Amino acid sequence: METLFFAAPVAGLIALIFAYYLVTKINKVDPGNEKMREIASAIHEGAMAFLNREYKVLVVFIIILAAIIAITGFVTEGEESMQPTTAVAFVIGAICSILAGNFGMRVATKANVRTANAAAQKGMNKALEVAFSGGAVMGMSVVGLGLLGLGIVIFLFPGQSSVINGFALGASSVALFGRVGGGIYTKAADVGADLVGKVEAGIPEDDPRNPAVIADNVGDNVGDVAGMGSDLFESYVGSIIAALALGAALGIGSNGEGVLAPILIAAAGIIASIIGMFFVRTPEGGNPAKALNTGTLVASVLAIVGTYIVCTFVLPDTFTVTSFGVEATYTNMGVFLASIAGLIAGFLIGKITEYYTSADFQPVKDIAKSCETGTATNIISGIATGMLSTMLPIIVIAVGILVAYYFGGLYGIAMSAIGMLSTTGIIVAVDAYGPVSDNAGGIAEMSHLDPKVRKITDTLDSVGNTTAAIGKGFAIGSAALTALALFTAFSQAVKLEAINILDPKVVVGLFIGGMLPFLFCALTMNAVGRAAGHMIDEVRRQFREITGLMEGNAKPDYARCVDISTGAALKEMIIPSLIAVVVPVTVGLLPGLGKEALGGMLAGTLVSGFLLAIMMANAGGAWDNAKKYIESGHYGGKGSEAHAAAVNGDTVGDPFKDTSGPSLNILIKLMTVISLVFAPLFI
Amino acid sequence: METLFFAAPVAGLIALIFAYYLVTKINKVDPGNEKMREIASAIHEGAMAFLNREYKVLVVFIIILAAIIAITGFVTEGEESMQPTTAVAFVIGAICSILAGNFGMRVATKANVRTANAAAQKGMNKALEVAFSGGAVMGMSVVGLGLLGLGIVIFLFPGQSSVINGFALGASSVALFGRVGGGIYTKAADVGADLVGKVEAGIPEDDPRNPAVIADNVGDNVGDVAGMGSDLFESYVGSIIAALALGAALGIGSNGEGVLAPILIAAAGIIASIIGMFFVRTPEGGNPAKALNTGTLVASVLAIVGTYIVCTFVLPDTFTVTSFGVEATYTNMGVFLASIAGLIAGFLIGKITEYYTSADFQPVKDIAKSCETGTATNIISGIATGMLSTMLPIIVIAVGILVAYYFGGLYGIAMSAIGMLSTTGIIVAVDAYGPVSDNAGGIAEMSHLDPKVRKITDTLDSVGNTTAAIGKGFAIGSAALTALALFTAFSQAVKLEAINILDPKVVVGLFIGGMLPFLFCALTMNAVGRAAGHMIDEVRRQFREITGLMEGNAKPDYARCVDISTGAALKEMIIPSLIAVVVPVTVGLLPGLGKEALGGMLAGTLVSGFLLAIMMANAGGAWDNAKKYIESGHYGGKGSEAHAAAVNGDTVGDPFKDTSGPSLNILIKLMTVISLVFAPLFI
Repeated sequence: METLFFAAPVAGLIALIFAYYLVTKINKVDPGNEKMREIASAIHEGAMAFLNREYKVLVVFIIILAAIIAITGFVTEGEESMQPTTAVAFVIGAICSILAGNFGMRVATKANVRTANAAAQKGMNKALEVAFSGGAVMGMSVVGLGLLGLGIVIFLFPGQSSVINGFALGASSVALFGRVGGGIYTKAADVGADLVGKVEAGIPEDDPRNPAVIADNVGDNVGDVAGMGSDLFESYVGSIIAALALGAALGIGSNGEGVLAPILIAAAGIIASIIGMFFVRTPEGGNPAKALNTGTLVASVLAIVGTYIVCTFVLPDTFTVTSFGVEATYTNMGVFLASIAGLIAGFLIGKITEYYTSADFQPVKDIAKSCETGTATNIISGIATGMLSTMLPIIVIAVGILVAYYFGGLYGIAMSAIGMLSTTGIIVAVDAYGPVSDNAGGIAEMSHLDPKVRKITDTLDSVGNTTAAIGKGFAIGSAALTALALFTAFSQAVKLEAINILDPKVVVGLFIGGMLPFLFCALTMNAVGRAAGHMIDEVRRQFREITGLMEGNAKPDYARCVDISTGAALKEMIIPSLIAVVVPVTVGLLPGLGKEALGGMLAGTLVSGFLLAIMMANAGGAWDNAKKYIESGHYGGKGSEAHAAAVNGDTVGDPFKDTSGPSLNILIKLMTVISLVFAPLFI
Repeated sequence: METLFFAAPVAGLIALIFAYYLVTKINKVDPGNEKMREIASAIHEGAMAFLNREYKVLVVFIIILAAIIAITGFVTEGEESMQPTTAVAFVIGAICSILAGNFGMRVATKANVRTANAAAQKGMNKALEVAFSGGAVMGMSVVGLGLLGLGIVIFLFPGQSSVINGFALGASSVALFGRVGGGIYTKAADVGADLVGKVEAGIPEDDPRNPAVIADNVGDNVGDVAGMGSDLFESYVGSIIAALALGAALGIGSNGEGVLAPILIAAAGIIASIIGMFFVRTPEGGNPAKALNTGTLVASVLAIVGTYIVCTFVLPDTFTVTSFGVEATYTNMGVFLASIAGLIAGFLIGKITEYYTSADFQPVKDIAKSCETGTATNIISGIATGMLSTMLPIIVIAVGILVAYYFGGLYGIAMSAIGMLSTTGIIVAVDAYGPVSDNAGGIAEMSHLDPKVRKITDTLDSVGNTTAAIGKGFAIGSAALTALALFTAFSQAVKLEAINILDPKVVVGLFIGGMLPFLFCALTMNAVGRAAGHMIDEVRRQFREITGLMEGNAKPDYARCVDISTGAALKEMIIPSLIAVVVPVTVGLLPGLGKEALGGMLAGTLVSGFLLAIMMANAGGAWDNAKKYIESGHYGGKGSEAHAAAVNGDTVGDPFKDTSGPSLNILIKLMTVISLVFAPLFI
């Protein structure tokens, strides 16, 4: 049985080998003419420059937190104390996440120009293949390094079950900086480029005369590739670790079968994702959306088969656990069903997100119509739609939790998160494919390629917009389930049999926890506002001071804009990040509050963070597509009054959907993970 | 001791007698010239017409719900079953709230024209006196009928402690329709009048040529007088009933002293409010804000003295209660401190609200500045400010809860709500004074009085804007504490020793409960949008079809607009109202969920409702005052680009602050009350 644990590093290695295979394939594609290579290299360098400067901040943060963990581990004593080796696991987790982000983004910024050139030379199918391969490297890096790193930690520290939580904290810490910093970066650049370029100077999107255009394209990679990847890396390893912890704490199986099963399902999910990727292909003139859906579907079906096999052959036929003083018996098929419940819930949340954010359905059409009466009605309509769109995902998650609990108890809930995340490999691939295509379009525009190239990349990009919206729904859904599973693990770690809402300390925790996402959103939105302000000033300055820029006779100083976005993002991410880390520990240690209040706080943040994240992501996505719907000729089209109102809505939606909303995914997970790691202090 | 219970009806009667005295005083004031009387009478009739049609809906609702309660009472059996007489208490509660709203609004719509005329004939001091007296009738009606009605129910059904919950449900039901219906009414009229009148036709606010101008003025009364009054009526009686229930359940004092104390404190608060009202006067040219503050301060100090006396002489010196399996001893001085904690919390939340919504402070100035870069940045800045403004009230409430619990246990929390609400009489008076002054200004404008009159009413009105914002903060703060106290009473009623967040059913309850305020806001915002759409169509029609209207040669059909607002408000309030009533009972009865999930749901709604309510009220108030700040000459003043952006923000803020936000106060209380009344079904 023990040897089966090797499935984790082995599957991880397979994923990385497959990623390497994809990289060699991408590298073989011609990167196009000199102009294209020059632009692509500027984007690539800008993105890597951001990562490198982010690492400098990260290294300081990691060293300090690792030192705190190690010292706490040495100072505290007894069997329940923190293990100093948790600090090592923490560093390994952080490094794995950094590497995944680095590989993924490095390749994505090579795939973009090759996608553009493939579209120019060989057409849609080849372009889709290159763009998807670019995204797939990110996907394979996430799951590969996730499972490989976990495997390493398990083998390094056998029998020290709490140490592995450090790995999750490492992943969470990197995700925090990746999502928050990346989110601020991308929107500062986007808003700055749009407001001065499109509105003031009257030049089109992706025009090479715009000094912020490179920063804008870098932002797509920094936010939507690296940020999103680190978010799902965190969910992925968090869900596995929660299931491991519960499998161990509840004592499922006499030989650690409850610990083994999540690892094997994750390993099976990697194989399923790789096979699914081979189904992402379309005949010339075919529908890329269909190709992506087919690949995801194949992977999901295979993952279900794999889960079924693992549950049947690994888990005991029945097992009995005691929770809340009640003894209950569950079956291995019950765990299988719980896992499927998670997979279905993830799928449904994606579909609901699509309904509320795609111009094919009524909500976005209604928002577009409300633009006819001006900006105010558009804003009200968008916010109302965002709020309304929380209802169905909540019901889906609620039913998912109840079903998973009914069939598998607390372990079932953790396994439903595993089920949702087993196909993370292909989900990240589909998600990261979007910004690669988007970038390809930008490069095509900037290097004045044939308009038919832009048409191909636009088709790929518009599919990417939908997959990105679905990916966002999936990211928040998986964050909620993962946080819930980690929350259950936390309660076991601090030996809480109950967190009683009737206890005023818990109520106070709920209130404070519920407030934190609001605070977090306020801080990140204001951060985008300030950072965009700096960018606007710089772009205006360049248009004013660089002679011949508007006429195309002089080159703008792209690097300066990249530098401003980078600096602002790194500066602005500090305070929100500190809040996420410091508040849980403080509440857990404060004499009047303690672990009960901390439990209440985590629940409060989970609920209000989930709701706000959905509301903001969907409102932002809906405004974006309402604008595109009007631009496609409805209600007067481009240049109409309705269009002006729609542009305002889209601008409001930018920080909603790309900065504040997604950052909440990290907040709810990180707060739970940090509470789990420092649990020994709160007992 | 028993005879002291008579303090309730006696103090209630004193309040009503004082209200009657104020009415005779108001009636003696000259209502001005014929034109003024005509306009005032149109407003009065419009407001009463709305109330009368609202009653028709209410009667149906009340009969159905009373029947359900009575039947449930007869069908269920045993000591724990529901008492059929609860239905009687329910009807009495509803009637008392209806009467309070009716009296208050009837007088407010008489005081408005007399305020205008007093300003014209006698100047500021007399105008302040009339306007404040108008508001004071509402305040005295609320506390008078609240305490009188409670006294009647206590004497009608001695020893049937759960019956009194029916009274709270009656108050809540009327408040629901009052706040939601009134909120939709006032904003439909306001948005309709502004968008067509100010923006399209280019005529000033309160211009008699605008067909929606009467509906707009009716809306101020319907929403800000009657709606607000029913909201605080609900909080007032809810807090008293929760304290009674806990005093009885925890067995404080051998002779029901724990039940008596809240009633006596409330009675003392009425006397304190009446005395405080005599201090609301200003020398000619004086500052009306100072006068209002002095009155409130005097009332608060007297209420503290009264609370001290009651705690010293009525409550036992020490008492021991067991909660969560732990025995704890508290002192009567501890209860006094708990009560003061509530009073201070209410004051602080009001001040924080002022900080975030008044143009005297940085947040509103920053929002005004953001208007320079357009509507989008204004919207982002306002929403971020609204979100940020949740932090301090949460901390205040959290500290208040912890202090109250530390000094007085669960009973202390209920008593802190009593402390916060003991001066409800003068708080409602100060709050309702605002719309009376606002109306007076409108009447002065429409009847072409000397501009100096409008200047006086504008001064009164601008003070009223601040008091209204503070009142909103107070209303939501008191709603949260009241709901928490009722929630504790609910848990006692369903015999729950613990509501464990680790139980997935409770988590599901938290998720669903957290979502309901989002759903409620979405529905009410969309309702305002639709209702305003109807209004816009009608106003446009009248401008188009009534010849000579723009030239002032023909009279618009005011009644038609009033009718549209009324019809739309009544229609649109049905679905949100049903949700508030049906969902808790359904969750409580569903086999897979039950009372634990219901408990989780109530907590979820309390937390997310409180946060959203503060965010929306403060964002709306801040946008409103940012617009006024620009209109006073900053950033280009009226007609500038910044002003246009500010107007958009204000329009978005209208349903935020006057419909959706305040409706949440009711939602969090009503859901708890209905769970409390139907508690016997969930055991």
